[in-house]
Amino acid sequence: SSGTPEVIIPGASSYNGLNLVPQMGWNTWNAFGCDADEELLLSSARHLVDFGLRDLGYNIISLDDCWSIGRNSSGYLVESPIKFPSGMASVISRLHDMGFKFGIYSSAGTFTCARYPGSLGYETQDAELWASWGVDYLKYDNCFNQGQSGTPKISYDRYNVMSQALNKTNREIIYAMCNWGNDDPYDWAYLIANSGRMSGDIYDSFNRPDDRCPCTEAPGCAWPGFHCSIMNILNKMPSITSRTMSGYFNDMDGLEVGNGGQDDNEYVTHFSMWAMNSSPLMIGTNIDTLSPQNLAILSNPAVIALNQDPSAGAAIRKWRYFVDFDDYGQGEISLWTRVLDNGDTVIALLNAGNSSRTMNATMDDIFLDQRTAGAYKAPPELSETWDVYDLWANRMSNEEAQAILDGGGNATVSNATRTETYNATATSYADGLSNNVTALYGAHIGSIAPSGTFTAEIARHSVGVYRLRSQGSGSLRKRDEL
Amino acid sequence: SSGTPEVIIPGASSYNGLNLVPQMGWNTWNAFGCDADEELLLSSARHLVDFGLRDLGYNIISLDDCWSIGRNSSGYLVESPIKFPSGMASVISRLHDMGFKFGIYSSAGTFTCARYPGSLGYETQDAELWASWGVDYLKYDNCFNQGQSGTPKISYDRYNVMSQALNKTNREIIYAMCNWGNDDPYDWAYLIANSGRMSGDIYDSFNRPDDRCPCTEAPGCAWPGFHCSIMNILNKMPSITSRTMSGYFNDMDGLEVGNGGQDDNEYVTHFSMWAMNSSPLMIGTNIDTLSPQNLAILSNPAVIALNQDPSAGAAIRKWRYFVDFDDYGQGEISLWTRVLDNGDTVIALLNAGNSSRTMNATMDDIFLDQRTAGAYKAPPELSETWDVYDLWANRMSNEEAQAILDGGGNATVSNATRTETYNATATSYADGLSNNVTALYGAHIGSIAPSGTFTAEIARHSVGVYRLRSQGSGSLRKRDEL
Amino acid sequence: SSGTPEVIIPGASSYNGLNLVPQMGWNTWNAFGCDADEELLLSSARHLVDFGLRDLGYNIISLDDCWSIGRNSSGYLVESPIKFPSGMASVISRLHDMGFKFGIYSSAGTFTCARYPGSLGYETQDAELWASWGVDYLKYDNCFNQGQSGTPKISYDRYNVMSQALNKTNREIIYAMCNWGNDDPYDWAYLIANSGRMSGDIYDSFNRPDDRCPCTEAPGCAWPGFHCSIMNILNKMPSITSRTMSGYFNDMDGLEVGNGGQDDNEYVTHFSMWAMNSSPLMIGTNIDTLSPQNLAILSNPAVIALNQDPSAGAAIRKWRYFVDFDDYGQGEISLWTRVLDNGDTVIALLNAGNSSRTMNATMDDIFLDQRTAGAYKAPPELSETWDVYDLWANRMSNEEAQAILDGGGNATVSNATRTETYNATATSYADGLSNNVTALYGAHIGSIAPSGTFTAEIARHSVGVYRLRSQGSGSLRKRDEL
Amino acid sequence: SSGTPEVIIPGASSYNGLNLVPQMGWNTWNAFGCDADEELLLSSARHLVDFGLRDLGYNIISLDDCWSIGRNSSGYLVESPIKFPSGMASVISRLHDMGFKFGIYSSAGTFTCARYPGSLGYETQDAELWASWGVDYLKYDNCFNQGQSGTPKISYDRYNVMSQALNKTNREIIYAMCNWGNDDPYDWAYLIANSGRMSGDIYDSFNRPDDRCPCTEAPGCAWPGFHCSIMNILNKMPSITSRTMSGYFNDMDGLEVGNGGQDDNEYVTHFSMWAMNSSPLMIGTNIDTLSPQNLAILSNPAVIALNQDPSAGAAIRKWRYFVDFDDYGQGEISLWTRVLDNGDTVIALLNAGNSSRTMNATMDDIFLDQRTAGAYKAPPELSETWDVYDLWANRMSNEEAQAILDGGGNATVSNATRTETYNATATSYADGLSNNVTALYGAHIGSIAPSGTFTAEIARHSVGVYRLRSQGSGSLRKRDEL
Repeated sequence: SSGTPEVIIPGASSYNGLNLVPQMGWNTWNAFGCDADEELLLSSARHLVDFGLRDLGYNIISLDDCWSIGRNSSGYLVESPIKFPSGMASVISRLHDMGFKFGIYSSAGTFTCARYPGSLGYETQDAELWASWGVDYLKYDNCFNQGQSGTPKISYDRYNVMSQALNKTNREIIYAMCNWGNDDPYDWAYLIANSGRMSGDIYDSFNRPDDRCPCTEAPGCAWPGFHCSIMNILNKMPSITSRTMSGYFNDMDGLEVGNGGQDDNEYVTHFSMWAMNSSPLMIGTNIDTLSPQNLAILSNPAVIALNQDPSAGAAIRKWRYFVDFDDYGQGEISLWTRVLDNGDTVIALLNAGNSSRTMNATMDDIFLDQRTAGAYKAPPELSETWDVYDLWANRMSNEEAQAILDGGGNATVSNATRTETYNATATSYADGLSNNVTALYGAHIGSIAPSGTFTAEIARHSVGVYRLRSQGSGSLRKRDEL
Repeated sequence: SSGTPEVIIPGASSYNGLNLVPQMGWNTWNAFGCDADEELLLSSARHLVDFGLRDLGYNIISLDDCWSIGRNSSGYLVESPIKFPSGMASVISRLHDMGFKFGIYSSAGTFTCARYPGSLGYETQDAELWASWGVDYLKYDNCFNQGQSGTPKISYDRYNVMSQALNKTNREIIYAMCNWGNDDPYDWAYLIANSGRMSGDIYDSFNRPDDRCPCTEAPGCAWPGFHCSIMNILNKMPSITSRTMSGYFNDMDGLEVGNGGQDDNEYVTHFSMWAMNSSPLMIGTNIDTLSPQNLAILSNPAVIALNQDPSAGAAIRKWRYFVDFDDYGQGEISLWTRVLDNGDTVIALLNAGNSSRTMNATMDDIFLDQRTAGAYKAPPELSETWDVYDLWANRMSNEEAQAILDGGGNATVSNATRTETYNATATSYADGLSNNVTALYGAHIGSIAPSGTFTAEIARHSVGVYRLRSQGSGSLRKRDEL
Repeated sequence: SSGTPEVIIPGASSYNGLNLVPQMGWNTWNAFGCDADEELLLSSARHLVDFGLRDLGYNIISLDDCWSIGRNSSGYLVESPIKFPSGMASVISRLHDMGFKFGIYSSAGTFTCARYPGSLGYETQDAELWASWGVDYLKYDNCFNQGQSGTPKISYDRYNVMSQALNKTNREIIYAMCNWGNDDPYDWAYLIANSGRMSGDIYDSFNRPDDRCPCTEAPGCAWPGFHCSIMNILNKMPSITSRTMSGYFNDMDGLEVGNGGQDDNEYVTHFSMWAMNSSPLMIGTNIDTLSPQNLAILSNPAVIALNQDPSAGAAIRKWRYFVDFDDYGQGEISLWTRVLDNGDTVIALLNAGNSSRTMNATMDDIFLDQRTAGAYKAPPELSETWDVYDLWANRMSNEEAQAILDGGGNATVSNATRTETYNATATSYADGLSNNVTALYGAHIGSIAPSGTFTAEIARHSVGVYRLRSQGSGSLRKRDEL
Repeated sequence: SSGTPEVIIPGASSYNGLNLVPQMGWNTWNAFGCDADEELLLSSARHLVDFGLRDLGYNIISLDDCWSIGRNSSGYLVESPIKFPSGMASVISRLHDMGFKFGIYSSAGTFTCARYPGSLGYETQDAELWASWGVDYLKYDNCFNQGQSGTPKISYDRYNVMSQALNKTNREIIYAMCNWGNDDPYDWAYLIANSGRMSGDIYDSFNRPDDRCPCTEAPGCAWPGFHCSIMNILNKMPSITSRTMSGYFNDMDGLEVGNGGQDDNEYVTHFSMWAMNSSPLMIGTNIDTLSPQNLAILSNPAVIALNQDPSAGAAIRKWRYFVDFDDYGQGEISLWTRVLDNGDTVIALLNAGNSSRTMNATMDDIFLDQRTAGAYKAPPELSETWDVYDLWANRMSNEEAQAILDGGGNATVSNATRTETYNATATSYADGLSNNVTALYGAHIGSIAPSGTFTAEIARHSVGVYRLRSQGSGSLRKRDEL
């Protein structure tokens, strides 16, 4: 049968009932590496609140590697008293009070990647400790795994031990596997986890190939590595697109937006394509020094709503062509599409070529899957007229973003006339979408007639993201209602 | 020794004695996905009878995914009362009364692909239930398999549990493995199953590459995927051709004929090459709205007889050349041959190039295997003259097909003067072939002399399929009689 | 350490003490497939004796697949009473009386490749039976193996069961693994077997690629297949050359010489390169109808002595270039070298291009390994003058070969003036080489000076094979004496 | 998280506390193969002392394969009485007295590679014996491993048995795995060993491809082989660079410097790139006949200090371009960089093209990692001015080297005016570097300004190696202090 599940039976939407849309939050690794302490966590949390990011949905504070100093005589992990003088439980409690979930980190190995104590063989004890601290989220890495890999079964069994241990705590803990796509988790990880990394580690480059990230395909990658560029990771998604589903997301790794290695267009592309593919959106930069441009990217409610859509699916790359190559020998354009829960279709025209260009998306390409889904008559989508909404048209201005950064809060700014923002703490994106909240739909820029073509000018290393709504959408049936 | 078994010992022609020629029938998935209910099954069955398709051999009604609502407190699967208000056993009984076998669906995993309950761990209980219902056929999928893959042994053991469970029911149940060719079943699946999918899922496109179907070779494919085109699947067959055998068939997936994504030539090619390779022939379109063109394709007795030939072997691709590429970068021509049970040889000249062309098949290429089979003197085939029969020449006209569709039966049409049809319910294809029933042999169009060349004009994306009979075939010995 | 063992400890030259040089004999499969009976075995044996082939070393009669009719009520295999009316034990006894060893066939699976009963699970019983019959040799195939493959360990364990069973019989039985190189036996098979197939099955073509033999490399081949050409198999040897050793040989499959699919030059190349690489030399044609040309190839004592050299090593391909391609897109030339037990070096200049050409071998290339073996001063080989002997110069004339075929024996012919033959039954090749028997050294045709180049005109699809002897060889030390 | 551990917790710097910087010494195999006896060991040891090599750090005498004659009736290995008439324990004792550690050799298989007894199944007994002899180092090979490979777990388990056995002896024994990178040890070997070979065996060629070394990538190599050139091995490092760490080094195999197969530039490149990548430095030539040129290469304290830097990391290849190809089809240039413990950065401009050329390294490339490490503001490295030290500028002259070789010691030469050498026996490289000993820093040749470019003329098949020191290095913080 088709790789894309179309019906979700009760209880099967997630192995533990959690994470039905991709997790959002902030993680320490990309910007700080090992250098994270309670002061950083609390300061960042305050700024996430102040800048409106928490209420946009970034509500997990995810502490990464290097937080422990070893195990005590009872075998329990001990947090560093230098980095966490208040004690971890106290820090977590304060973060909870600020409206955040708290994420801990460990590895399914003898050591973590930075050679701190790992949890392999200590799964029950560690899960118990974390639950007692109030942990809500676990990023679980793959380093120093005692060779327990090489077949899906070996990896499944190893990661399942922690899954069972978390379940036994009776605390709701989102389980984020970080095994880099080893042993093709795409067929098995949904059964035991809420997300799973599908590539080697990201680095802050748009498309520079790096010897340390040798694979260009996700399945069967023998050595995922690290220093994988945005485009490298993105291009590993199309073959595994069907393995993103509600409750289990293919994690494209934390965001690099704000870290300085890419230009504004590139960060827009990075953020948009992560959103398109239902990747977790974990901010990975220094919040305390965030620039207005980067705040504007991270704060686009229309793009976040795409990411948080209840459809919980990945995008499909309909075509890809290699075009004018840059010094790295890279250059390509592609069309991505995704059908959303309310029947809208989002398209992304990605220009990863080395110059600006006019790009086209035909109705035939946009609705290729409907055309070839076994329909014995023409699919209705092809005979509809579709309104087009540009999801980046209402991007917050730098001035407004600076005001938020300066003002220490978005309360005042949310009354501004120019940009509509969103409070997901108050109203979920699903509800907002159902209610047709305009901030979630971008700007109406035109329409596409049946058998028409959508055309847009896309800058170098940028992307246009457009939501298509059928003018007759009231009568449009979803595929699984045919 | 050679990969092609030449002698079948008693009891070894199939692991359970069933399916000595490829299964034929109709399956719900390609056209309807999850949306199948008893009304659809019964209506389709009626039309299969009325249009003569049942009697041409399509005698399995195969229900695919999404039929259950879970397990009851005893652990038994429960059919959806909305989709199957009469109860599954009752539906099956009515289908039996109409002369059909009934096929059920499950997955060797925690869930089915559409996330309904799977049978992993419930094999005995599920087999018992199905047998009690009167199930005759099982399509057994591979989704959510708990990582139980990665070596042939792991997959064999998992699929063998269901094989043993089916055997224990003492009901004759054809076992159709659907593990997409994972872990190279070509060496082991014959021992436990009656057919096995050898690729990712088909979609209704002749040759468009799709990112979701990344492999172009069958053995060692790490990620079979789905959205595999006709040509993609076909080109995975040549290296595993020897692993098609009586009682175990390499399943190229259900037919797309009738679903609208290909033109008439392409559907002829699709159907012909599935027949050439002894793939199961499971119709996958809406029978109730079948067009005359598509009925004519599905109803060609000469091509079905090729598929149902007792030789039960796959075709051999003798050569392949890349030619004028289309917009997808695709374009190729090839010669396929297959020796049949009565000593005839069928050849297929496939033009998957982007324009019509004259194609040639030399006697040396057609009989390459005989020339190089270790014969210490020239093989007799090369010194014979062969009569050529075109298997598509007597294709039913659209008018006649329309009459069948309109008339609600082929009883009246079978008396028509122009097309000879066939009733396999009354007389097996094996018997028909032995009796030289002309409907099974197409139209005589000429002959090929020793060391001659056969030439034909083949349209774009089409195929010519020709049966060669030796004029001295009475004296021709089969290879295993040498 | 280096992959080439240089010192053999007592008891370690073979796992069971047998087959210190490659097995030679005649096997039924390539020419006869399943159609072998006692009449064929005995008739072929008589001709092998009459034509002098037994005494040249071809002293194993190897019966292949299809000899049994199943197991009796005690579980013992039963030979076909139609094919073996005298009973297998009686046939074997008569072959023993004629000076032959007898080889049986089975598969490490449920069935043999032709679907006769296999030995998986019956290893002890089958080995006992064969020993009781007087069997001296087992070809053990890989079909229908219940998925027991996928890691070296799984294959090792499966094949080791039969190895242990054979040992327990206390009969000397040469164990010829036929697992097509699956799971890279090159690191483990020496411990349990006397030879091991390293590719898919051969077919009688010099270099035509065939879809059924998809791999071009031996290690890591996921699907060895069959219909592998001479050049395909040969080109899989260079990367595993170090895994040929005394007591365990990489089996390139039975010879096709005489089967009609190649010209004389091609058969000379096939035979020469099998000899160069210490492959078993199992004749695979109809002895009863052998042509004089093919007898002359199979009877060349100088080339057989190369194969039977106590060095028991494979050749090294020093260079390979692609040259004028034929219609199959094939065309290449290469230089192969091999150091023999007495310090001689044999070189083969292989022209697999599509036309005749002048080929060169420089001293630097011939002695590349010595030059780069860690010597801290120039290796002595480079400063010697080497006499050159052409191993094919004294090929038996067709007239003489015809006389042998006509005369029913080589007794009379061996007194002829023109060709010197050899009786390995009386004197082993090792002894003959030690005694400088001229028949084993070909014809002296010149010499190569230090830093010189050897040049020869090589016909299309042919090979020149030359033995180099140092003029100062008395003082030449072997590598392991340095 | 990032593949590069940045913080080492107490006790985790090495699985057994040993080998925090790469081992250095002399090994018998590359030059002598099996032909090593006590006389060779003792003579070589004396010359290592006399030529100053021991005090430069080459303080392990590593005996390779072929030393035993089997096991005695108690199962203990017995050394050859011909090669080691004094007994191994006595030889070891004398080497200890000369200030050397002693290395033994075995294989995790039934036999060693040269088919002497292996240790598989005898791990405890063999480790006990070696400890009783005073062994300090084990090279543990992979031949004849009974098929115990194929997944990381199988290899880990096999190699771990010896690791545990060595630990139980309570003697400090450095454990050097030699499994050729099979089963990707990069994720697991750090837990059980001190170094691990990552490729097939080296041979004395700069860049000639050899059929016996078929892989060009380290991860996933199915058949590592042997006869791997310097460039072949080097180019397998970039993707696994993060898996070199203090206490576990990726072993690029023993040095070929001095064996005659490469020119002086090539040996300089070989030695430099091994040093850059923290490979063990095991001399593999005949010390007794060492040339002055080769002594000069092996004696460069500035390059050895790079190898022995406490950072214990591998280099990163920042770019690679293919350039003018030679007769082997080889030709490339690349830039490698490495950050050292004191904040210095070393760059290597490698010219493996076929002619001399001007090469450039930009600040942007040199500090690419810092630029893209998630920094939210420009890294300080890019705004510093860096002094450049050429690590080969002070290479010992041939005259001086000859004097050392003639004089039998470097005591007198160390007072010479022109070259400063180093005594690591007296002062570790770490201490020497901390003390800014000038011999370890090469010659100051200039500086690079912020956003500048370093340019050098590099000869064919050579390398320039330069240490960069920030002029403001006092204020430079290391990455993990950010």
